[in-house]
Amino acid sequence: MDERFLLMIPGPTFTEQSVLLSLARVTRSHVSREFEDVLRESLDALKKILNTDGEVIIMPGSGTSAMEFSIANFVNPGSKVLNLISGYFGEYFVQATRARGGVPVEVRCRPGLGFRGKGIRELVEREGAKVLTVQHVETSTGVANYIKEIGEELKNTETIYVVDAVASLGGMEINMREWGIDVVFTGSQKALAVPPGLAIIGLSKRAVELIEEEKRELFFFDGRRWLAMMRNVRNYFSTMPVNMIYALNESLKRILSEGLENRYLRHKVVAEAIRGGLEALGLNIVADKEFRSDTVTAVWLPENVKFQDLSNEMMRRNIVIAGGLGELAGKIFRIGHMGVANPNDAVSTIAALERSLSKLGYPVKLGSGVEASQQIFNKYNL
Amino acid sequence: MDERFLLMIPGPTFTEQSVLLSLARVTRSHVSREFEDVLRESLDALKKILNTDGEVIIMPGSGTSAMEFSIANFVNPGSKVLNLISGYFGEYFVQATRARGGVPVEVRCRPGLGFRGKGIRELVEREGAKVLTVQHVETSTGVANYIKEIGEELKNTETIYVVDAVASLGGMEINMREWGIDVVFTGSQKALAVPPGLAIIGLSKRAVELIEEEKRELFFFDGRRWLAMMRNVRNYFSTMPVNMIYALNESLKRILSEGLENRYLRHKVVAEAIRGGLEALGLNIVADKEFRSDTVTAVWLPENVKFQDLSNEMMRRNIVIAGGLGELAGKIFRIGHMGVANPNDAVSTIAALERSLSKLGYPVKLGSGVEASQQIFNKYNL
Repeated sequence: MDERFLLMIPGPTFTEQSVLLSLARVTRSHVSREFEDVLRESLDALKKILNTDGEVIIMPGSGTSAMEFSIANFVNPGSKVLNLISGYFGEYFVQATRARGGVPVEVRCRPGLGFRGKGIRELVEREGAKVLTVQHVETSTGVANYIKEIGEELKNTETIYVVDAVASLGGMEINMREWGIDVVFTGSQKALAVPPGLAIIGLSKRAVELIEEEKRELFFFDGRRWLAMMRNVRNYFSTMPVNMIYALNESLKRILSEGLENRYLRHKVVAEAIRGGLEALGLNIVADKEFRSDTVTAVWLPENVKFQDLSNEMMRRNIVIAGGLGELAGKIFRIGHMGVANPNDAVSTIAALERSLSKLGYPVKLGSGVEASQQIFNKYNL
Repeated sequence: MDERFLLMIPGPTFTEQSVLLSLARVTRSHVSREFEDVLRESLDALKKILNTDGEVIIMPGSGTSAMEFSIANFVNPGSKVLNLISGYFGEYFVQATRARGGVPVEVRCRPGLGFRGKGIRELVEREGAKVLTVQHVETSTGVANYIKEIGEELKNTETIYVVDAVASLGGMEINMREWGIDVVFTGSQKALAVPPGLAIIGLSKRAVELIEEEKRELFFFDGRRWLAMMRNVRNYFSTMPVNMIYALNESLKRILSEGLENRYLRHKVVAEAIRGGLEALGLNIVADKEFRSDTVTAVWLPENVKFQDLSNEMMRRNIVIAGGLGELAGKIFRIGHMGVANPNDAVSTIAALERSLSKLGYPVKLGSGVEASQQIFNKYNL
């Protein structure tokens, strides 16, 4: 595999050269005005992307650590958390809730299905849950839950609404203010198209107030200390990852200059074209039609095709795909199409998949998947 | 201030160009064999530097998060932790202990003093502490505690010995095996000369066993999950900061190629020369002679010299210094001299300090500080 490989996994995603080169800028002091300017600009851009009336926190970490932050600051020992679970990462919320001493109320659906709004309010009230958690995109199945509908159900309730947007933020619309979301988090390496290493948390005004009112005994994930540092870097608590913030800042500038609507549309069309190509090849997509995300697609492996073989064949063609997690390991493969993924990447991926599957004995009419993708791009004049 | 400024603060430190450029390498998949090779090489290098019979964990984070890991995995709610506190970061251990539900037993000394081994064993036994924590170098005062002596006192006891080596690892010798240290941690941006963003934790064999035996309800800081991922990146738990590990790997190669003894000697001589220069200017060093570290020097501000004025004057001369933390804010200034700091940096710093102090009305015979530094470098034939 040469250096021009395509990283078609659900993160880390491909990063543009200008973003990578930003990483290599000379490291400034973490409490300098120069660094603070870059951090401030990044926080402002994220607030725009999230449309929040509250604040944003960035820390060294990952989506997993951002999840711990989102639970630790809003769950007290013994309090109930309603965990809507549509896959592997839904289970992460259960573990995070337990680690905090919270009581998880677990609601599961089968792989491929997700959650809509209807009935959520009744469920929360019946269970007396103080916090509700859900994935926007469940990365393990490519399912997109209807976070807007769920938010509308929770409006005017006391329930704290926590959304894992690790696989969606920057690729699919999220509107914290209008959808009533209190806490949203992601990692840098997904649709924000930055290398991994940052945890990013968006907070509503109410969430900020809750952090400031409740004095929880926390250390690294103490929201009050992070808020203080985001407002003024001289409120030193933990050293900020200066170079990673340079890269984030560069990518955020590119995101806003592309335009959020354009960006979401690009994700939608690329996703549609990839799904079209896959289905033309007779492959079955894990997510039900109603729940398909614009950022990651999970596909059932054809009979007699092993993931490792498919992965090797794709890798030989310079394209990296992902396998299944947990109970889906060995049963599915996954294609990430987020961040800077474009029609060329989609066509290359479907084409390489045709040749790889053909090589592995799966019957393929070469070009048939690509043709289906082409029709979709053509429809959008791309 | 132009791009050729010297970062003479106690971290982030100056990073060499080859390390910065490593950050900009194309991001590989976090579960790829290519990335695993780089991670493995980095872990092996760290094991050498730490001389541990156990294992090493690297995660996205900071020294602060590494401290939380070191407490969370070894302290149970209600169990006693002896915190030896020689400054601002000593207090961090108290907070981390409380966050975990542990009971801190706080032993303090005045700024400038540190801890030696004598009497420690009796103290631990009297208090019934299961864990002892101490800073190797207390960054806020430049004090180096005698971690070797303390380790010798704790040998053949059950006490888990946790050392904060944030400001020392890579600049001063640490020998986990011979000094009986169970847990050591640092951040990437100090004497390891990498940009900030990584938490690094060294574990003794016993510490690894303790993590694996005790099933604590943890999430992001769950040691078992991190150990599993360090052993095989396909044990995915949280996305590794791929590009930061590239940079760490490059710096570790340079550290081992300099040679650990050479590196520690360089730190010792540069520190001595900086102190010599400072004292020749009539300035008073915070740390008592017995406790002076080789990585950071804290200095009392002369009467009538404000930190902000001194910092501005130094910055105008392209040298960044740090101020005091907590109760020492406004009373001291601090010079970091770790990582890749060399005699040229030391001379430039002392010389700029002469001009800056002179400008601010403090009586200076220009060249007198530099002369004293020169004498010391000359003694070592540098």
